[in-house]
Amino acid sequence: MAAAAPSFCPNRTISLSTPSHNHNQLTSLHSLRRFSVSSSSISSRCRLLFDSNNRILTPTVKASAAATPVMDQPTSSSSSAVPTTVDVDLGDRSYPIYIGSGLLNQPDLLQRHVHGKQVLVVTNSTVAPLYLDKTIWALTDKNPNIKVESVILPDGEQFKNMETLMKVFDKAIESRMDRRCTFVALGGGVIGDMCGYAAASYLRGVNFIQIPTTVMAQVDSSVGGKTGINHPLGKNMIGAFYQPQCVLIDTDTLNTLPDRELASGLAEVIKYGLIRDAKFFEWQEKNMHALLARDPNAFAYAIKRSCENKAEVVSLDEKESGLRATLNLGHTFGHAIETSSGYGHWFHGEAVAAGTVMAVDMSYRLGWIDDSLVKRVDMILQQAKLPTTPPEAMTVEMFKSVMAVDKKVADGLLRLILLKGPLGNCVFTGDYDRKALDDTLHAFCKS
Amino acid sequence: MAAAAPSFCPNRTISLSTPSHNHNQLTSLHSLRRFSVSSSSISSRCRLLFDSNNRILTPTVKASAAATPVMDQPTSSSSSAVPTTVDVDLGDRSYPIYIGSGLLNQPDLLQRHVHGKQVLVVTNSTVAPLYLDKTIWALTDKNPNIKVESVILPDGEQFKNMETLMKVFDKAIESRMDRRCTFVALGGGVIGDMCGYAAASYLRGVNFIQIPTTVMAQVDSSVGGKTGINHPLGKNMIGAFYQPQCVLIDTDTLNTLPDRELASGLAEVIKYGLIRDAKFFEWQEKNMHALLARDPNAFAYAIKRSCENKAEVVSLDEKESGLRATLNLGHTFGHAIETSSGYGHWFHGEAVAAGTVMAVDMSYRLGWIDDSLVKRVDMILQQAKLPTTPPEAMTVEMFKSVMAVDKKVADGLLRLILLKGPLGNCVFTGDYDRKALDDTLHAFCKS
Repeated sequence: MAAAAPSFCPNRTISLSTPSHNHNQLTSLHSLRRFSVSSSSISSRCRLLFDSNNRILTPTVKASAAATPVMDQPTSSSSSAVPTTVDVDLGDRSYPIYIGSGLLNQPDLLQRHVHGKQVLVVTNSTVAPLYLDKTIWALTDKNPNIKVESVILPDGEQFKNMETLMKVFDKAIESRMDRRCTFVALGGGVIGDMCGYAAASYLRGVNFIQIPTTVMAQVDSSVGGKTGINHPLGKNMIGAFYQPQCVLIDTDTLNTLPDRELASGLAEVIKYGLIRDAKFFEWQEKNMHALLARDPNAFAYAIKRSCENKAEVVSLDEKESGLRATLNLGHTFGHAIETSSGYGHWFHGEAVAAGTVMAVDMSYRLGWIDDSLVKRVDMILQQAKLPTTPPEAMTVEMFKSVMAVDKKVADGLLRLILLKGPLGNCVFTGDYDRKALDDTLHAFCKS
Repeated sequence: MAAAAPSFCPNRTISLSTPSHNHNQLTSLHSLRRFSVSSSSISSRCRLLFDSNNRILTPTVKASAAATPVMDQPTSSSSSAVPTTVDVDLGDRSYPIYIGSGLLNQPDLLQRHVHGKQVLVVTNSTVAPLYLDKTIWALTDKNPNIKVESVILPDGEQFKNMETLMKVFDKAIESRMDRRCTFVALGGGVIGDMCGYAAASYLRGVNFIQIPTTVMAQVDSSVGGKTGINHPLGKNMIGAFYQPQCVLIDTDTLNTLPDRELASGLAEVIKYGLIRDAKFFEWQEKNMHALLARDPNAFAYAIKRSCENKAEVVSLDEKESGLRATLNLGHTFGHAIETSSGYGHWFHGEAVAAGTVMAVDMSYRLGWIDDSLVKRVDMILQQAKLPTTPPEAMTVEMFKSVMAVDKKVADGLLRLILLKGPLGNCVFTGDYDRKALDDTLHAFCKS
């Protein structure tokens, strides 16, 4: 069914009487309508094309490092709002990311991606009381043939292990889920990673949908298909690359997110700017106050731009041969912090923030960036209320011991993501002066 | 380096002074030279083509249901024997299966498929004393930069579980294996399945080589990339599709295989004949005595023909959308036997044999095959010293309860592989009279 077809209309709000089956075709329009920016960068980018049947043709949202957000037209969070869509292009494993307010009120969005008649919702004890009923409603509304089961896991990175994963398999088998069933991850990154790995492994692979409810999961773990669990000796050591059918990001779920978790997610948002998107970093410097105030338009833009950046990288390098590794800026140091501190004590984004400062410090010691960038990184992380130093108890030895088993070690050589050149440029390399690494570790550790 | 180039020479033995780097080009020749059959079906199929440099061109071994083995020329099991190769065609996941006597004496065969400098050999307490040293030698001979670790798991299907799998991860992480490492499965189907799933999951996927040492593993689990572990409630419920770099089948390893395990593997060999290769079934009827007497030529042929059949099916349907499911003739009944009896009490092939008799019985009740085929199946399985009835303790309810969670259930409907038509034809269907299934279950169970 085609939506009402407006004529060429820069910055005009288009009303839709019903959710359109041609939602993809409207993606660009709505994504343009809904983003707010500082008034100095208003521009008109609404270009619509029509086919011979007067249907809107797809002006695809493409990841573009130079994209400038445009003037926002006020919109209500009505249940029929058409979401912004970011397409992750992976050939026959491609999938859409829907971003918008109130998307869980639109059953069709989810239901179109559920194959078979059985759904297992995997969530945790924090998210279940908030969104499980709503999710089950969205899956079953006007869809009486579907059977939905759920499994509620304990909340926290310390439970991202084999023992907890087995609870998902137990529930799936007890519920006699077959190959055509769909696993739905409802929660943050831990739930997404565990549910994804369970979906990849159950009967050697079943359908999988992500409903991320934290900034971290929305801007990072929802894109790229990395799934897995931790091992006592290392983070994400066991897992699979496994792509979902779709990702549904209802930005309303951020309303219930604790401040500390919100900040944790911002560490990844900041990362995208640093490694590949200078304009996005500059936008963040100007709009950090709006993000901390949970301005929905600012968040929709930050999530979209993050997903686009990650989608572009993942499309070019799905299995992390090189380029994709750049998404791990600060993560090697960060994982060492998480592993050494005991999973769950530091949030992932907090560890990444401190790790980013360390990677930036090392880049500066190597002479690869100038000190103004070091200061800007420190500044924006502090503004985001993120830590900029590792825990006091961390020693040089603790860092080295965990970093030695990092997944980016190849034939004994630790490769790192480091900034090099102007803002927005980085390298993934094992070719660096080991002394700079030592100096950085000693600078940030008391022993 | 090209091998000495003989002129056109049906049935002439060609001597090779050194292992040839063009081994693939000699594949067909050697595979033809090494198979023995009953004297009534001797034929000359040795056709060689040469290019302008007098090198032998590749007469590819293709899976062909009508292939007839030819006269064997006596050959020695020298360490420089060139193996028969079956190519499993899966696009960028294609890999070769090398089949031959003494292949573990040829380090180059293994080493060419090892990337990186770290190898983890996964084996069990039965196989390790027999072949672990030899395998480590083959990996390290004239290859001083390689570091080989091994993990020895307890032997038996009852250990194909998450707890045992974790021992592989523990060893890999403790040994600081990185993404470029290679996991080598040395053992039967259980080791292959567990090592394969560990390789699929460790750091989200590392290289994997199979050295199957049982008939079952050589003719079945080495082809097709199915990996996984059991759950207390069902067999192979957790796993991945993951293809190896190569499979190396040294038929000499069968010399140490217990009779009962040898027979278990024959159940799968017989299956290939029944579902798609009437000539192969007829060959088995004539040569079962040679297989039971461990005639190496008979075994090399049976393994090659089995691998070719499976490779052809898997190439057409890697992820088991339909055709591939036909490889599971007898397996739905068989898995119920294995699960109900407790893993490890019945060998997989024994359960499959009894399951095959049940599937054939049901096919006959449906009027899809005539009774002469029922008798031939019963006869060949008995000749192979395999069971033709389930354990006495099995009840109809036990069968139904396990079969309800079979991976071939789709939206509540159990699909089965049943024979239909003349020998060599089968169907995979949920469209059958439920009464026939009930009647079969009652005919084989006391209650």
